[in-house]
Amino acid sequence: MTPRIPFTKGNGAGNDFLVLHDPENRTALTPSAVSHLCDRRVGIGADGLLRAVLCARLPEAHRYAGRATWFMDYRNPDGSLGAMCGNGIRVLARHLVHHHYSRPGRLTLATRAGLRTVDIADSGSSGDVTVRMGQPRLPLPVGALTVTAGQRSWLARYVDVGNPHAVVFVDDLDHPGPLASPPTVTPAPPQGITVEFVRVLTPGHLSLRVHERGVGETPACGTGACAAAAAAHRANICPPDGMYRVDAPGGTLHVRVLPDGTQTLTGPAELTVSGLLTPSTLHSELAAPRPGTEPCGL
Amino acid sequence: MTPRIPFTKGNGAGNDFLVLHDPENRTALTPSAVSHLCDRRVGIGADGLLRAVLCARLPEAHRYAGRATWFMDYRNPDGSLGAMCGNGIRVLARHLVHHHYSRPGRLTLATRAGLRTVDIADSGSSGDVTVRMGQPRLPLPVGALTVTAGQRSWLARYVDVGNPHAVVFVDDLDHPGPLASPPTVTPAPPQGITVEFVRVLTPGHLSLRVHERGVGETPACGTGACAAAAAAHRANICPPDGMYRVDAPGGTLHVRVLPDGTQTLTGPAELTVSGLLTPSTLHSELAAPRPGTEPCGL
Repeated sequence: MTPRIPFTKGNGAGNDFLVLHDPENRTALTPSAVSHLCDRRVGIGADGLLRAVLCARLPEAHRYAGRATWFMDYRNPDGSLGAMCGNGIRVLARHLVHHHYSRPGRLTLATRAGLRTVDIADSGSSGDVTVRMGQPRLPLPVGALTVTAGQRSWLARYVDVGNPHAVVFVDDLDHPGPLASPPTVTPAPPQGITVEFVRVLTPGHLSLRVHERGVGETPACGTGACAAAAAAHRANICPPDGMYRVDAPGGTLHVRVLPDGTQTLTGPAELTVSGLLTPSTLHSELAAPRPGTEPCGL
Repeated sequence: MTPRIPFTKGNGAGNDFLVLHDPENRTALTPSAVSHLCDRRVGIGADGLLRAVLCARLPEAHRYAGRATWFMDYRNPDGSLGAMCGNGIRVLARHLVHHHYSRPGRLTLATRAGLRTVDIADSGSSGDVTVRMGQPRLPLPVGALTVTAGQRSWLARYVDVGNPHAVVFVDDLDHPGPLASPPTVTPAPPQGITVEFVRVLTPGHLSLRVHERGVGETPACGTGACAAAAAAHRANICPPDGMYRVDAPGGTLHVRVLPDGTQTLTGPAELTVSGLLTPSTLHSELAAPRPGTEPCGL
């Protein structure tokens, strides 16, 4: 009999995640199993799924095994592999520390976008978590991408924060209108792209709405907040201390641009429900024993 | 340590429920714990919560103990007590039979609206379940209630199917517009009321949209389908065999009006996820030991 899988539901600024604790890499996660679990009526429901696996037990993470204990196997809710998720990694850190798989303090976590350092002060079920996000890449000029929503188009800035973003500065966040259907991005990135609409309130205070690829409009997005701050910084919209407050519909995040160009992302991460899932009733494919290797994406 | 609580997520025609299996009545369910669990971002998410309790272990159900083994403690997602739920009771029956707490065939279940008989052919995780719904009460003439949505008003029929409904016949189901905010019902029932907008395709074929009290627009509603069929029947919109097909956005249900005026409701009921919930991380109030009695409401 396949053992039950520990799960936790958590959120960062309203962006919610289903964490599956699978240290020994025993759970095969097919795209259909992920989309089934993330569906809000059929499954548990989440903006994304985070599987916690020991680096030493996952072939795609072996190279990190000396430097990080845990790998964040992030999946978008449509079942596709994800590289990095700024709110997700903060929720994953809280799960690991709250459930005593790691100690509070500084953790190094492995992701498909590389290693990330996380600071978490205590083992409670809620409170701020900070993640060092690395250095965003802005290789293209403003206008290399065009974003269209409804009847309007905007020139956008491409920002790579481990995953791809198109950042648009707008005067009015009501203006993009409903984001139930994806804004169009030209040229269309083959893997999809997350779109941020950003309003500058003061140089250190941004407000945003986000349409995440494979999800739709979400209450918040950690990498989206970082991409917005990076685009503002590149446009010389700079607070003296490099600290941006980023308000999203689901809550507030803080992005700090450090002198070396790297960023930190700080905000609430709370765990709300936990338990054990019965694999056989989740999804038939989830219960299947997994073969030795994992498709390595990105 | 409070033991983990078995849970199942299931749906009937897209109307989804969180089932908590609590035979010994050990779990105190406060309104805030229910709304926490039913919230789709914070909790597991559901259109309603069904707690399965042995009649012999629940003071409010003692009177049924000789005739029914299980009581359906139904809660609306806003935390209020519910009496009867046509799709919920079918999902509860599938939970009880699939997990071998009851045998397939005919079950008698106790609810706050009285005893209900359910027919379920097998112990699979999906398939049709039929519930005998009793006799609807239509004590008031058409027009005793008025329903207003957007800029329009309609005369409505009050139908009591164990819970209260206002049924409106419309020519066009797009016409009520978005039902994100509750339609207004006059005079306003003190406990709230569920509103059905019904289009008659043929005498035996209805199509509906439903705004459930305490929930909002839902993909389907079992008692709503029964209320729609009862209102059609009273208005002499009658198929020869008394069998109404009722299409809702989430799926199709069948309501049969029997010669004695009682109804049966038939449709799919499937279980999709199950496991065990950790009470202490669910909600602090959920973990509290419950006192001997339960507020008995309708």
